[in-house]
Amino acid sequence: MRQPAHGGNLAWAAALAGCPPDAILDFSASISPLGPPNSTIAAIQSQIGNLRHYPDPDYSELRLALGHFHQLPPEWILPGNGSAELLTLAGRELAQLAATMLITPAFGDYYRTLAAYNVKVLEFPLNLEGSGGWGLATGDWGLGNRGQENSSSLYLLPFSPLPLLSNSPPENSGLLLNNPHNPTGKLFSLEAILPYLEQFALVVVDEAFMDFLHPDEEQSLIPVVQKYANLVVLRSLTKFYSLPGLRLGYAIAHPDRLARWQLWRDPWPVNTLAAAAAVAALQDREFQEQTWKWLPPARNQLFAGLAAIPGFQPQESAVNFLLVESQQSSLQLQQQLLQHHQILIRDCLSFKELGDRFFRVAVRSESDNQRLIKVLSAKC
Amino acid sequence: MRQPAHGGNLAWAAALAGCPPDAILDFSASISPLGPPNSTIAAIQSQIGNLRHYPDPDYSELRLALGHFHQLPPEWILPGNGSAELLTLAGRELAQLAATMLITPAFGDYYRTLAAYNVKVLEFPLNLEGSGGWGLATGDWGLGNRGQENSSSLYLLPFSPLPLLSNSPPENSGLLLNNPHNPTGKLFSLEAILPYLEQFALVVVDEAFMDFLHPDEEQSLIPVVQKYANLVVLRSLTKFYSLPGLRLGYAIAHPDRLARWQLWRDPWPVNTLAAAAAVAALQDREFQEQTWKWLPPARNQLFAGLAAIPGFQPQESAVNFLLVESQQSSLQLQQQLLQHHQILIRDCLSFKELGDRFFRVAVRSESDNQRLIKVLSAKC
Repeated sequence: MRQPAHGGNLAWAAALAGCPPDAILDFSASISPLGPPNSTIAAIQSQIGNLRHYPDPDYSELRLALGHFHQLPPEWILPGNGSAELLTLAGRELAQLAATMLITPAFGDYYRTLAAYNVKVLEFPLNLEGSGGWGLATGDWGLGNRGQENSSSLYLLPFSPLPLLSNSPPENSGLLLNNPHNPTGKLFSLEAILPYLEQFALVVVDEAFMDFLHPDEEQSLIPVVQKYANLVVLRSLTKFYSLPGLRLGYAIAHPDRLARWQLWRDPWPVNTLAAAAAVAALQDREFQEQTWKWLPPARNQLFAGLAAIPGFQPQESAVNFLLVESQQSSLQLQQQLLQHHQILIRDCLSFKELGDRFFRVAVRSESDNQRLIKVLSAKC
Repeated sequence: MRQPAHGGNLAWAAALAGCPPDAILDFSASISPLGPPNSTIAAIQSQIGNLRHYPDPDYSELRLALGHFHQLPPEWILPGNGSAELLTLAGRELAQLAATMLITPAFGDYYRTLAAYNVKVLEFPLNLEGSGGWGLATGDWGLGNRGQENSSSLYLLPFSPLPLLSNSPPENSGLLLNNPHNPTGKLFSLEAILPYLEQFALVVVDEAFMDFLHPDEEQSLIPVVQKYANLVVLRSLTKFYSLPGLRLGYAIAHPDRLARWQLWRDPWPVNTLAAAAAVAALQDREFQEQTWKWLPPARNQLFAGLAAIPGFQPQESAVNFLLVESQQSSLQLQQQLLQHHQILIRDCLSFKELGDRFFRVAVRSESDNQRLIKVLSAKC
């Protein structure tokens, strides 16, 4: 079985660990350990009898719920079969431009979707140098670096300058980035991204992890989407609501663009159960509050535990995973953890800038986190 | 609300009928009234706890089950988010050819997917002339017309010749057809299609309704797929197993082609519940037998009832729907049935060759069929 390019491949892990997939303690997929919320499970159950009908091709109720949640008219929102489906459609848009700049290290599926449409990719690396150091150096083409010092979970990182682009990006080019950034967990400020909207023909911001930030701390571009026809925001319900098996994400962008995307894909991309689960999830304020309350202390616990182990250097993160620099091979570590402890961590081989000296772990419950820390401490 | 281009749009119908979607008696979507099978519902229920995990990106178990069902190695099968997703990928393949011939009247989504990739479309009309007459005239480029007289549910129809193409198709062109044909319900013989595989660079056969034929009567191209690298067969579990809300279809084609498609789309197109439901459905021999037993008499009943009403002329069909020629406007009829009887039939406006003088109805249970016949008899 080939080495998976994504986290959460339990079939692969179970084969290697010699146990059923259920027995794996999965730190590799950046999924909340709190969900799925009971409200979404109830919504799914209630709709099983409706599987005999086609979904509403307009997804009116779902778009209304999403519009209500984000305070946007429903026509600015396009639901999809996971945000991954919408990323692929964004790739087709980006292919119409001269080139697309990609903030690296980048999620492997960005390369897949850009290659699928033969997009010319210009890599634009974050500054990964310095042990744990994410310097606040400003880029050289107009990046903001306004700090926000009132919240311990905010890490404002201006982009590192790309040597080949000392002043401005090539004409008619696109930008694809995620915020918060995967796999580093860093958050860019809204203000830091705004100048790009003036410089690029199209800016696609994947905010798959943004909902892990409390609304007071979010740096989402959704509030400005109606001002920029060249902005696409991608969101996911997968991670926050722990529903990767159900497939639900959405794009927020100008209605003309979304109407074009609709013609590029099949008429019923979102299944009936996912549509119902999403409506319930968005209304589940209690689950949302619970998540925002759980994450910071659990992340601090995991961070502190890993930082205390010689040879491991976790990066500070705004979201529900930590990137860890390791003095030993992360691939070897992954195999040992699987074979001896049925624990799965995410190697970073699919991020070519990181290679074998980094791994990524999700923040899980305090007892799970403690188990990982204990096992790693014993080995090192 | 706009007139829907597909059947099964209950949200639209309910708004027009002034009733909840549940109250609509839906003859517009060509879905079996017998399902979903209990086995698939149980499989869905059993997997709800696994929604917190990503689906296996290889869909190994699902592909193994499909391979077992069709006696093919799993790598010849690619599951998708409904066959509609796979049709879109086929459209991208067809766009690489000089032109694609489309058998018309054609399912509206064929035009959508071909337009999505700017495919040059050459229409290749079936002979719709003659009242109820589907003459056995052979085409003029090598079509077989071998009859099979041992089964009352088989209607072997050679293609009508396309006047502009008296001998052979343009070089490097594709062919997209469905078999059995929607909306006419006609079945083409395997032998009638085989010559096309020699003449076209790529032949895409949508067999979304083929499973309604008993295995002894099927004319599927799946048994020859390993002989033709230029053949793609699309199948759906939507219609036969009554699961349009779940989204599950699959493509059968050469592994190299399917590997390419895999790179054109996101890594997890099939949700966990659909994958589990499919495995259960394929093994549910009892449900399959029940369907093959139900359909011929129910279809005969509906056919005879409609044929006995002056002004309606149903076409003979091999599958679970009937195309009906009508002396009155089918759009008006549709509105009357909705507003006065909460019955939804499929107008044929999206099939431009048919327009307002045809409608399509699904074969339902004997009592539902009787209700439709009674209402239509009273009106006419």
